[in-house]
Amino acid sequence: MKFIENGNVTSPGGFTAAGAVGGVKPSNTTKRDIMMIASDTVCTAAGVFTKNLVKSSAVVLTKKNLENGTAQAVIANSGNANTCNADGMEKAGRMCELAADALGIDKSDVIVASTGVIGQVLPIEPFERTVPQLAGIMSKEGGTDAAEAIMTTDTVKKEAAVEIELDGKKVTIGVIAKGSGMIHINMGTMLSFVTTDAAISAEMLHSALTEAVDVSYNMVSIDGDTSTNDTLVILANGKAGNEEITTRGADYRTFTDALTALCRVMAKKLAADGEGATKLMICKVSGAKTTGDAKTAAKSVICSSLVKAMIFGEDANAGRILCALGYSGCDIDVDLIDVSFSSDGGSISVCEKGSMLAFDEELAKKVLCEKEITILVELNEGSGEAEAYGCDLTYDYVKINGDYRT
Amino acid sequence: MKFIENGNVTSPGGFTAAGAVGGVKPSNTTKRDIMMIASDTVCTAAGVFTKNLVKSSAVVLTKKNLENGTAQAVIANSGNANTCNADGMEKAGRMCELAADALGIDKSDVIVASTGVIGQVLPIEPFERTVPQLAGIMSKEGGTDAAEAIMTTDTVKKEAAVEIELDGKKVTIGVIAKGSGMIHINMGTMLSFVTTDAAISAEMLHSALTEAVDVSYNMVSIDGDTSTNDTLVILANGKAGNEEITTRGADYRTFTDALTALCRVMAKKLAADGEGATKLMICKVSGAKTTGDAKTAAKSVICSSLVKAMIFGEDANAGRILCALGYSGCDIDVDLIDVSFSSDGGSISVCEKGSMLAFDEELAKKVLCEKEITILVELNEGSGEAEAYGCDLTYDYVKINGDYRT
Repeated sequence: MKFIENGNVTSPGGFTAAGAVGGVKPSNTTKRDIMMIASDTVCTAAGVFTKNLVKSSAVVLTKKNLENGTAQAVIANSGNANTCNADGMEKAGRMCELAADALGIDKSDVIVASTGVIGQVLPIEPFERTVPQLAGIMSKEGGTDAAEAIMTTDTVKKEAAVEIELDGKKVTIGVIAKGSGMIHINMGTMLSFVTTDAAISAEMLHSALTEAVDVSYNMVSIDGDTSTNDTLVILANGKAGNEEITTRGADYRTFTDALTALCRVMAKKLAADGEGATKLMICKVSGAKTTGDAKTAAKSVICSSLVKAMIFGEDANAGRILCALGYSGCDIDVDLIDVSFSSDGGSISVCEKGSMLAFDEELAKKVLCEKEITILVELNEGSGEAEAYGCDLTYDYVKINGDYRT
Repeated sequence: MKFIENGNVTSPGGFTAAGAVGGVKPSNTTKRDIMMIASDTVCTAAGVFTKNLVKSSAVVLTKKNLENGTAQAVIANSGNANTCNADGMEKAGRMCELAADALGIDKSDVIVASTGVIGQVLPIEPFERTVPQLAGIMSKEGGTDAAEAIMTTDTVKKEAAVEIELDGKKVTIGVIAKGSGMIHINMGTMLSFVTTDAAISAEMLHSALTEAVDVSYNMVSIDGDTSTNDTLVILANGKAGNEEITTRGADYRTFTDALTALCRVMAKKLAADGEGATKLMICKVSGAKTTGDAKTAAKSVICSSLVKAMIFGEDANAGRILCALGYSGCDIDVDLIDVSFSSDGGSISVCEKGSMLAFDEELAKKVLCEKEITILVELNEGSGEAEAYGCDLTYDYVKINGDYRT
């Protein structure tokens, strides 16, 4: 498995994309906000979506369009979530039609996604104006513009791609995502699109995606709020020419491992670029009775406001980590817990067998002043392991979210 | 029922208290940090405690001391939580002994509580020095000093008392509490002590306390973190001379309603003085299928970081309220939800039948600029109702928690 420099959704064979300034928010005259991704041919496809009962109309329609396991293109916008709008389904349907007409494909093969403010009517004119133009500039270089077009409060574009060999053929998987706020486990992103030229059945694609998401996007939390628009979709067009993956054999494993690695990279990118974040926080739990317990414990730590604020303040107040483990709901023996911090600045043990250690404050500061901090929790009860990804809680999170609409 | 001006734990007959500067944190030379409350006679007593698996040694010992349903005094400190310390049980025991010796009572009738930093060894010298002094200055005016002595990052003292008539006798209930951070439902406070001169059996006292807590302290969240030290204890000494309450009759109801009203006042005080808070946020949910659903929905709204930041920013982004309702886990029909905001500045409807309304931004600003904001959620599905209490998320929350230990 090899990561491709500057890779993204147009890295796999047969995919093109484009992004443009559509002016979905009338005040926006400079940032790309509408994008399309398309495959030359119909793809097998799978998706996972928000579990919030309040859903964007785009999510409702995409789930419907994915029922037959095929898709050929994606249309997405930022600046408006198309959620809690009386005419939401009509607008989402119109977006699919515009994309289908411009690309000459079936409208039921279009994936639609929106992100931005909830509860404001989505203007359709920007799409009527922009989608035909987009169709005219779709290219192999367009993936990065598509990544920009879905950004909201993100400060960096999130894109990546990996290359593997399946059945003697070079297979590529590419991804773009946007995250930033309203991000919580199940799922940890608002929008992410994955493309691959692998030949794989819709059933195996869905299985691989579920496996990958479970240990990546679903282990990210920025602020504990599960969005109404979370959408992760994968399209596989088979252009690589490998023998189609139809069972959970060796090729399935290779493909799923690569997809998982790719999704983990994106999960870390999402966490590191959380709204207002200055640090990526990783919690690695080991020695849990079960994998489920390890996941619960790791997520509880990275979700704690007090732990997040402490990481921002570079203060090794490990009592807060014990506290978050204690209320996690997972079955632990407090008197067996060891905790340490590690980063490029070194590592330091702060708790052994549930009791705090006297530690070198200077070394702690050196470890915690880095940009990527790992909190290691050893429960000493079994072999369950998990990793969760979060970020610090900062003044800027409050600033960004205190007045998001204006 | 009548609230008593400047009332607190020494308002009921037969209770005295005192607070003093003990220097639990060596750097503290001015703030009261050790306190005692005592009754002239042995009381019936009940308590509810943190459900966090990581518990202060003070909590462990107090639960044990309350097993027989009696108690006579409280000793508590701020500045150190006595949690995650290898010698924690020994120190908690020593605090009880010192109080019992100084007051001339049985050490198993002492309630002990600590609040402050987790994982630092509790120095016992400040108690050896201060507790005999405290015993010498216990008075009917000392309740307010006791309230000060348990404050950590609290900015205001929290005390209240009510007077009721039971069986022709004047009965008083008084309370003090400290809150501020690491506060979450189950329970919404770190420490709170209630005293009453009512005659009531230990069983009925526990029942009344549980009822009251359920709709007050347990409906408060500041930051989602359930503390390791949460302790709420009530002592009843029977000095009022009413016939002892031993069943759930009319007197039980009068007493429990008064206790509930008192706890609700304290819950609002705790929420309004949350770490860094500038506004009290109340979410009232009505029309839920069940009371349980209403509670779940109300708590989800006041716990949402995005809603909290929005209230700080005085931005009527009601989509975030819908979002929090949608992921609450409660059984709701999104298409039936109405939402409005109200305050002393007026009221404004922002969502009807699950769709956002176009509303007057000027009026919204006028409603949201007040100090106490109520979010009204009507689910239109049944008769379940609940209220939850929270606060806004501010720069100062991050500042306070970024470097708490120093």
